[in-house]
Amino acid sequence: MQYSRFSKDDLDGMERIYRLSLINSISGYKPANLIGTRAADGQENLAIFSSAIHLGSDPALIGLVSRPTTVERHTLDNIHESQHYSINHVPVDAVGEAHYTSAKWERGTSEFAACGFEAEYTSDFPVPMVKGSPIRMIAKLVEEIPIKSNGTLLIVGQVLHLEVTTSAIDEDGSIDLASAGTAAISGLNSYYEAKRIAKYPYARVNQEPKNILY
Amino acid sequence: MQYSRFSKDDLDGMERIYRLSLINSISGYKPANLIGTRAADGQENLAIFSSAIHLGSDPALIGLVSRPTTVERHTLDNIHESQHYSINHVPVDAVGEAHYTSAKWERGTSEFAACGFEAEYTSDFPVPMVKGSPIRMIAKLVEEIPIKSNGTLLIVGQVLHLEVTTSAIDEDGSIDLASAGTAAISGLNSYYEAKRIAKYPYARVNQEPKNILY
Repeated sequence: MQYSRFSKDDLDGMERIYRLSLINSISGYKPANLIGTRAADGQENLAIFSSAIHLGSDPALIGLVSRPTTVERHTLDNIHESQHYSINHVPVDAVGEAHYTSAKWERGTSEFAACGFEAEYTSDFPVPMVKGSPIRMIAKLVEEIPIKSNGTLLIVGQVLHLEVTTSAIDEDGSIDLASAGTAAISGLNSYYEAKRIAKYPYARVNQEPKNILY
Repeated sequence: MQYSRFSKDDLDGMERIYRLSLINSISGYKPANLIGTRAADGQENLAIFSSAIHLGSDPALIGLVSRPTTVERHTLDNIHESQHYSINHVPVDAVGEAHYTSAKWERGTSEFAACGFEAEYTSDFPVPMVKGSPIRMIAKLVEEIPIKSNGTLLIVGQVLHLEVTTSAIDEDGSIDLASAGTAAISGLNSYYEAKRIAKYPYARVNQEPKNILY
């Protein structure tokens, strides 16, 4: 294997956009989610996030990392107003439309219409979900945690409502994201489709895991 | 699309393992990383984590979520002792070996040898990397952030040394993780390989993104 090696000094001295592209890629695959929100005046907003992260299952908690940038500020403002947001997996056949939500749309333009998505509401919740998203949910804001090292924010939400493409749910409750048709992201702008290659039982000492997928 | 729908009450009343499998799957694709550490007495440890998350590029910061469980506590204890750890992408042809590191290996057993990996050191850093990992790096602990909602911990590390398979780096610095051969995870035990389907330029209002991959 031929490696390119980068020291801290190399990273510090790197051209800004090159570093942004490189470092955004090194954590590995990221989930592709559209975050749906609604302002107090009714204005809907939709923005792609690649930072959704599982935090716990009981209660069901998901984190999002937010930076104080233009695009994400609309989302964050709206979350503060309604205390709710939707998380919608991006289907592999809509990655271009999803990427388009990251343009600097002005307040007053709904990314749903501008980018080719349709809003859907479910009973009692004040925020729109994305029609056609294979896995989608409504979360309620429960905690905002400042990350002092760089001034970002970890937004913690509890899942109050969940919809999953039925055919993608395994018998044991796990989901085949490839069967659901969910996209993955790397870096700032690369999109992937995936194929499940293995599923293993709970790992135990002295029992080498055997692929139980087929 | 046929959805299975789950309310908060459905989730609260769900069988524990089923809920664990389901909720661990709903954030989307997760990166597959092996975290390499070394205790003060020299004992090496290797553990699979699916919670690596990009936090910033300048400085290069990556987060990991840690729960107070047996397996991860060895990793966390070692990080506290040496203040460093390695993050190593799991190659698609080693997902079984990587999953095996999640068994409850006793203190005193190195998962490197037990699961079929080889440790490699790089100058001046006190923790082992994984030989053959297509993208690997050394991080230094810079912040530990308690997530009050469920008692988990966000471990923030700064990347001080980075190695990336040269052929997987695009001209602009972004990485094709599929070309690098990195695996993705969903839920507790499903592993994926991916194919890059699109790469878009920086999104601008009134310019529909055009796939620039080929």
